[in-house]
Amino acid sequence: MKPFMNEDFLLSTPTARALFAACKDEPIFDWHCHLSPKEIWENETPADLAALWLGGDHYKWRAERSCGISEDLITGNAPAKEKFRAWAACMPKLIGNPLYHWTHLELQRYFGITEPLSEKNADRIFETTRDMIRGGGFTPRELIEKSNVACVCTTDDPADTLEYHKLLREEGKFGVKVLPAFRPDKALAVEAPGFAAWLSALEAAVGHPVDSYAALKDAMLARIAFFAEMGCRATDHALNPVPYRVASDGELEEIFRRAKAGEPVSAADGEAWRTDLLRTLAKEYARRGWVMELHIGPMRNNNTLAFRAVGPDAGYDSIDDNPVAYKLSRLLDSMAAENALPKTVLFCLNPKDNYVLGSMLGNFQTDEAYGKLQFGSGWWFNDNISGMRAQLDALANLGALSTFVGMVTDSRSFLSYPRHEYFRRILCEYIGNLVENGEYPNDLETLSGVARDISFGNARRYFGLE
Amino acid sequence: MKPFMNEDFLLSTPTARALFAACKDEPIFDWHCHLSPKEIWENETPADLAALWLGGDHYKWRAERSCGISEDLITGNAPAKEKFRAWAACMPKLIGNPLYHWTHLELQRYFGITEPLSEKNADRIFETTRDMIRGGGFTPRELIEKSNVACVCTTDDPADTLEYHKLLREEGKFGVKVLPAFRPDKALAVEAPGFAAWLSALEAAVGHPVDSYAALKDAMLARIAFFAEMGCRATDHALNPVPYRVASDGELEEIFRRAKAGEPVSAADGEAWRTDLLRTLAKEYARRGWVMELHIGPMRNNNTLAFRAVGPDAGYDSIDDNPVAYKLSRLLDSMAAENALPKTVLFCLNPKDNYVLGSMLGNFQTDEAYGKLQFGSGWWFNDNISGMRAQLDALANLGALSTFVGMVTDSRSFLSYPRHEYFRRILCEYIGNLVENGEYPNDLETLSGVARDISFGNARRYFGLE
Amino acid sequence: MKPFMNEDFLLSTPTARALFAACKDEPIFDWHCHLSPKEIWENETPADLAALWLGGDHYKWRAERSCGISEDLITGNAPAKEKFRAWAACMPKLIGNPLYHWTHLELQRYFGITEPLSEKNADRIFETTRDMIRGGGFTPRELIEKSNVACVCTTDDPADTLEYHKLLREEGKFGVKVLPAFRPDKALAVEAPGFAAWLSALEAAVGHPVDSYAALKDAMLARIAFFAEMGCRATDHALNPVPYRVASDGELEEIFRRAKAGEPVSAADGEAWRTDLLRTLAKEYARRGWVMELHIGPMRNNNTLAFRAVGPDAGYDSIDDNPVAYKLSRLLDSMAAENALPKTVLFCLNPKDNYVLGSMLGNFQTDEAYGKLQFGSGWWFNDNISGMRAQLDALANLGALSTFVGMVTDSRSFLSYPRHEYFRRILCEYIGNLVENGEYPNDLETLSGVARDISFGNARRYFGLE
Repeated sequence: MKPFMNEDFLLSTPTARALFAACKDEPIFDWHCHLSPKEIWENETPADLAALWLGGDHYKWRAERSCGISEDLITGNAPAKEKFRAWAACMPKLIGNPLYHWTHLELQRYFGITEPLSEKNADRIFETTRDMIRGGGFTPRELIEKSNVACVCTTDDPADTLEYHKLLREEGKFGVKVLPAFRPDKALAVEAPGFAAWLSALEAAVGHPVDSYAALKDAMLARIAFFAEMGCRATDHALNPVPYRVASDGELEEIFRRAKAGEPVSAADGEAWRTDLLRTLAKEYARRGWVMELHIGPMRNNNTLAFRAVGPDAGYDSIDDNPVAYKLSRLLDSMAAENALPKTVLFCLNPKDNYVLGSMLGNFQTDEAYGKLQFGSGWWFNDNISGMRAQLDALANLGALSTFVGMVTDSRSFLSYPRHEYFRRILCEYIGNLVENGEYPNDLETLSGVARDISFGNARRYFGLE
Repeated sequence: MKPFMNEDFLLSTPTARALFAACKDEPIFDWHCHLSPKEIWENETPADLAALWLGGDHYKWRAERSCGISEDLITGNAPAKEKFRAWAACMPKLIGNPLYHWTHLELQRYFGITEPLSEKNADRIFETTRDMIRGGGFTPRELIEKSNVACVCTTDDPADTLEYHKLLREEGKFGVKVLPAFRPDKALAVEAPGFAAWLSALEAAVGHPVDSYAALKDAMLARIAFFAEMGCRATDHALNPVPYRVASDGELEEIFRRAKAGEPVSAADGEAWRTDLLRTLAKEYARRGWVMELHIGPMRNNNTLAFRAVGPDAGYDSIDDNPVAYKLSRLLDSMAAENALPKTVLFCLNPKDNYVLGSMLGNFQTDEAYGKLQFGSGWWFNDNISGMRAQLDALANLGALSTFVGMVTDSRSFLSYPRHEYFRRILCEYIGNLVENGEYPNDLETLSGVARDISFGNARRYFGLE
Repeated sequence: MKPFMNEDFLLSTPTARALFAACKDEPIFDWHCHLSPKEIWENETPADLAALWLGGDHYKWRAERSCGISEDLITGNAPAKEKFRAWAACMPKLIGNPLYHWTHLELQRYFGITEPLSEKNADRIFETTRDMIRGGGFTPRELIEKSNVACVCTTDDPADTLEYHKLLREEGKFGVKVLPAFRPDKALAVEAPGFAAWLSALEAAVGHPVDSYAALKDAMLARIAFFAEMGCRATDHALNPVPYRVASDGELEEIFRRAKAGEPVSAADGEAWRTDLLRTLAKEYARRGWVMELHIGPMRNNNTLAFRAVGPDAGYDSIDDNPVAYKLSRLLDSMAAENALPKTVLFCLNPKDNYVLGSMLGNFQTDEAYGKLQFGSGWWFNDNISGMRAQLDALANLGALSTFVGMVTDSRSFLSYPRHEYFRRILCEYIGNLVENGEYPNDLETLSGVARDISFGNARRYFGLE
């Protein structure tokens, strides 16, 4: 029996251990996350581990609800220590759940605590960690630096002023690059109630009225130019579902008119809008060498009462299951046909789509980049041992594993960086097994390089990080 | 090499074996099966093992057809011994098939026969087991008791008089609880040719005419009340596919009128009917603390000629593959939005939907129950080692494994209880591997409790069995 | 650690090794491939390994593009040695990819080269193998004979004259059977631009005008009769997607008229056409005892620019994900209802459909054949270790593994026969693990027979090869 989560966690063979030794100290390039630039700028010491863990992590909230914890102890007004105790009480129930591993990796790496968390030691651990936090070293910037992060790409709206990015840059003190990433989801969601309000924000950002779809596209290009000045090189888009519907300029202008006027826009018109705007944006991304990230497959806000009570991103999302192959093929081809398909990362939420997306890559690979099309690492509900293995296996079988740009944190928490360690262990175990089984030569030099590249180097080159 | 199906069958580690030792003697709560209350009441000694195994088990019929056995030896008029020999001849061909394991578990547990069944020993085993059966101990009640069953929930139509349940209760001799479960599939199948006839049966059951949809809903509530008196706490619904379509009361009354008159009802109207009726029923289930089981994904009666020859449930069903996420989300949310979502178990026939259903649970979990929403154990075509492991892995990764209400027999045969043993072994192997790999602490006390809870305790509490 | 791809490659247990020893020398019945009868007839010595490997293998092209190789070195005009070097340079990057294994199996079996191919030894291996090829023994026929092939079924259009099959037969020198297989995809693709041209070819083949749909069906039957004279017993159909739409004779004649006149045919009409024509053909296949192969799931020619540049079958295809269950059920049932469902092999490209197709078989199994309905081996994007294991596991759990007709090469290359060895190793490892885990008795005699049958005997009997 292997000891619980010791230094050989998830590494069952000598080759896996050797590979992990080779890549574990590579820096982290966190090219997709939901960290707040404001919090990085303000850099305040958190109150306690409840604040760090339970303040905004809807993965944990959801797990607690699954264990029958009352909402008062989750998003309600219960005291921090009670909330912490509720979470600790769930821990032993989460057998086989990635939250179990993440929680203990975070306790080990940031606090040196190796005992399993449970209701029994909850109060003691709450107090110990609170004292440690008060003792210093737990501000956002300290946690990021301690985690060996080379660069963080936050996720930012086109209308955002990037005020905190500017402040961080002007101050020039933080050793870790903090760059914006361009996420135009609100521009794409033309049917959403908030579109007109977002349009006003865009007008404010560009400093003049935006009175037509043509003007909106120009404004978006202007914002891209501004983001580029601020160091942006990554973009992100949630496609629920993947759009592909061609409309004329006249139709698109009419959609714009209706949306600006607050008139209803049909789903079909929304799809046409997204198709055209994505193609417009993609062309600019391609021109600038930016990376287009596409997140495919969530079904959000499934619980109406809960949405009213606690809003979005609160643990009430799940996995959609519509077909994706045809429209994704048409969308990417419409870009490629104009030589305007940027470097692209496809993230897959429904594991039934692993082979669809994994095989889609090959339709559009060229020598413009080393692994121009990428299959994103196991995402959200797949960010676990089984999901990551399935992603690695699909990528290895359908493409070239060595070109993989690897892991993203995709978290709102400054304590989530051990997810990269988790990923690297799973990666090294996967490759190690191939070697141990005689399926790949015992060439540790080559494979150590591959492990390092997937951990950091590939992403660094892919995104053009200096 | 491990010996063939010995006491350590499917248990490869010390931890797995220790966990199985801890849970193997837990009683069985068989909260979903297709046993006949009439047969339990009549309690007749079966003729032989052919009668017990081959009389109604379409899983076996199907496997025999796959092996090229002629229908005469399956559902035809061949003598019992020849039918038994035909089945025995298939056995060695069913490498890796769960029927191979079930068959041998049943031979071992009920007859003490440990040799592999084949054409060679078929006649001898037929005769040996026939003599044992004649020697006594093989009536339905004896088999149920011998299997350490605490409670059986049969599957009953709302119009059923529950005559045999009453007789069993009045007699008061059988030590095992036999409760009805409410399965209103005929009420939901408003387009089916048999609907009008079923409506007459419902009228007979409630003792007055049912002349409107409103009256039908009242009649259903009356039957629920009657089932409740008879100890019911479980309900079951086959959703092929999942319905969600909203209609007005007027439209629903018009659908009722047409269906009662024997006029055709469109698929869209059927969907609207099912949506509304399910919501009505769910509200009542929720009020009473009943459990709503939803079975999702079969495509039935695919072979027209065979259906005409041998009828439904004869081995001509397979797996559907329509999208399920959106409509299931809307259906459950429409219940939750009225605070009328009962405890619910989602059973999944298409393994592509494991992650869709596994993640759907979390959208609606609350503190109303410990694991209010449940992901049902590997069902039908997934009731095998791979399918059960996939279900456990999905549940563990997406929810809280410890809350799981575990296995159901889902069988028409009184010999099927070793499927629970099969499940427990797979469960203990799964958890055991996590411990052996250092992914969960070596806390046998906690895990033994979890194994016992998943085997029995969770279901007992979930269904409110005293 | 196991040595790299030695004699025990993919065989981790004594049972697996014993089973492989029992089946490895079985002949190969290659009942589905894309070998050129013209090349077999002409039997020319290839120029070098670049010609053998890179001349037409779009799997390799695609992998090279994934590694960022420029098109000039793939399908362009670069010298053979440079193309070979580019492919060799990709090799070490293809960790876990089946091309890595196929490439090294081919180097080992045909050239005795056991070192891993890479950029470093590319030139030397190119020269060594070129010299060996020039030394003789590498013509198509020699490679086929060397590979222990008993029979090859090529893939041929109904309008094909089968000229090279005739020449091979008349010459009578080649010891390996080369039979045509009937692939009427162009007849089914009534909407395709090439349909009218294909119809002219059919008219030439039958020697008289084809002026109606009725006449086309007669012409197809005539071609089937001709193929039968030439030894055909296998047919193949690409269903993208599965059709099922019933139309009247009048409607079908009108579709014919439009298609012959070069007028546009709608997708719905195309579906109706395919449904009816497939049913007509199936009836004739059934009458003759032919096997109907259905290949389900590709989405082809996704890259418009690449299609214009290099045409079809150049590595720009991927996996479709539409639902398949309902229409496939209706199509097969429409045949079965007329007692005109032939022996059928369902090939599955999207692994999400494994359980749908695997369970579909059972709906139509009868005693007309041993395993009348077959689930095809892991195909194309699934022709890898994970994909083959998933196919075997689905088939074992849902049907009778012992009846399986096994592997097909499905290749355009004369060097691809080691894929059968690859498959047999995976098969023996799969069965071996069941025995080693105590899930199947240690009955090596029975299992050796099963392994041999799946390797060769089942297919021989299924296709009626003398």
